[in-house]
Amino acid sequence: MPIYQNNLKEKKIDFNTILNKVRVFAPATVANMICGFDILGFAVDEPGDEVKMYRVNEPGVRIRSIVGDGGRLPLDADRNTVSACVKMLLNDLGILQDIGVEIELIKHMPIGSGLGSSSASTVAGLFAINALLGNPLTKEELMPYCVEGERLACGHGHADNVAPALMGGITLVRGGADLDIVKIPVPKELYAGIVFPQVDVPTRDARQLIKDKVFLSDAVTQWGNIAGLVAGLFQEDYELISRSMHDVIIEPSRAILIPEFYAMKEIALSNGALSFGISGSGPSVVAVSKGKEVAEIVTSKIQDHLSANGIESFKYVSAVNVEGPKVLPFID
Amino acid sequence: MPIYQNNLKEKKIDFNTILNKVRVFAPATVANMICGFDILGFAVDEPGDEVKMYRVNEPGVRIRSIVGDGGRLPLDADRNTVSACVKMLLNDLGILQDIGVEIELIKHMPIGSGLGSSSASTVAGLFAINALLGNPLTKEELMPYCVEGERLACGHGHADNVAPALMGGITLVRGGADLDIVKIPVPKELYAGIVFPQVDVPTRDARQLIKDKVFLSDAVTQWGNIAGLVAGLFQEDYELISRSMHDVIIEPSRAILIPEFYAMKEIALSNGALSFGISGSGPSVVAVSKGKEVAEIVTSKIQDHLSANGIESFKYVSAVNVEGPKVLPFID
Repeated sequence: MPIYQNNLKEKKIDFNTILNKVRVFAPATVANMICGFDILGFAVDEPGDEVKMYRVNEPGVRIRSIVGDGGRLPLDADRNTVSACVKMLLNDLGILQDIGVEIELIKHMPIGSGLGSSSASTVAGLFAINALLGNPLTKEELMPYCVEGERLACGHGHADNVAPALMGGITLVRGGADLDIVKIPVPKELYAGIVFPQVDVPTRDARQLIKDKVFLSDAVTQWGNIAGLVAGLFQEDYELISRSMHDVIIEPSRAILIPEFYAMKEIALSNGALSFGISGSGPSVVAVSKGKEVAEIVTSKIQDHLSANGIESFKYVSAVNVEGPKVLPFID
Repeated sequence: MPIYQNNLKEKKIDFNTILNKVRVFAPATVANMICGFDILGFAVDEPGDEVKMYRVNEPGVRIRSIVGDGGRLPLDADRNTVSACVKMLLNDLGILQDIGVEIELIKHMPIGSGLGSSSASTVAGLFAINALLGNPLTKEELMPYCVEGERLACGHGHADNVAPALMGGITLVRGGADLDIVKIPVPKELYAGIVFPQVDVPTRDARQLIKDKVFLSDAVTQWGNIAGLVAGLFQEDYELISRSMHDVIIEPSRAILIPEFYAMKEIALSNGALSFGISGSGPSVVAVSKGKEVAEIVTSKIQDHLSANGIESFKYVSAVNVEGPKVLPFID
């Protein structure tokens, strides 16, 4: 789908049917999918973030509370990316002066984990305001606001996390600024075993480690792997997926930021993972596996290894989330 | 398919059933498929090369004649790549001393055209000896000999032409020396409109123009395009194929060797081609099109343009060849 020439002011919003409140979950995401730097990513069933959104009388958009961020995220509605994106959307719809919205953000996932934390929050917020308004926008029309949220949060407007968070499944983002997003089929038994070691790797630093220029020979290896991975996903060929999921470009630079990276990799591959690599810019790592059992075993062994080296960690074992964000029953 | 641990000496050759003669056609190929430098390629129905092979009493492999090469190819059986590869195969089978083979090579396509001329000849020769012997080898087992032929002919053992020439259809070659060849589905209406301008671009020179290092940002664009192309081929999504088939890495360097390249590109794209680019290392160019009619129109207009600029050319309009080499009825 080539995305969006928005004429949002032509959207009809029926103020009589706007909901009073809505609760939305949006999934964490594994950007890059090991070999597809800046173009591939997938969503997972857990973790993810939650937004509760309330319609109120006083016009404007406000953050009512944030839970689970350790106080790191701004409550100022113009600085918080969730509320800022919601404001932007309401402004483009021409109704920012006419509606009041308050947001509770419940973070179920760590910030700076390499799991698309900001994307999950932004997508949850935008999916929530759209649901509150009676879904006037398609997901494709919501996408540019999600990307803008990434620009606010990370300093660059990449879609590699927001695309799978919003669309669900495995997404290919090609065309850079043109934002051409292609859904790739999800093999049924594909599981992600994610381990988030408690070390800090800021995204900006991780990007700075990457060199501007790469050897053409490495690039050829990488795009052969990417083509093999896409073909393997279409054919549900787990062996081809496994042979193809190698990153010769980014991993060598970024792995040095992640303690025990190569030991974890050895554990993952020797215990049956199809592939192992960095999730986004890290420090989370992901063992892509065939079946839940392998993912469970691999993540447990990696956690044991980290623990023996004095590093605490979280783990998440999850199928690929094919749905993207969803409205949850409201619990006060 | 991960290719081949050959134990060819274990193959049983029944000398009583070896054919007296066989005639084989192998197709020309369009390597790179515009955006997939060194990894993608496809075979076409025409042009292609032909080998007639005869069993004779005197042991050894000899070239009886070559037609259509303008006297450029060696008749010496150790220097001619077709016979050299046939010898290598017979040697690995342990029967080189026991069988006599003579080869007529009929070239129906120009040498140095960027259409995999040497690959077509080598594949035809190896397919012919295998057919003569009663097909003891699978195509996968023949592949390393085809690659060796490329090494002899071009100085480097790439499979981007021989893989589609031997396997037919669209092939992905990943893994470099490990030679992991993946067949990609062929959309039914995909046609190639090829124009071969009568100018000389030696493959070795064309390779030397390419820089050792590339910008990571360009590489990301390219692998996004490659992933989009593979997805488009699986989904028969001609628009996605068209959006994805752009080469930002190799074309800018090589296009300068091909007179009127950008004028031809403009003609192709403005007349409905999905994409336009260099076939292999040129000077042939290819307009990838949906349907035969578009390919016919585009190639005719390109030929008219070249002619008006004093450049003669050949054209070939062809569906993607999905079969690869084939045995033809023998005509003396």
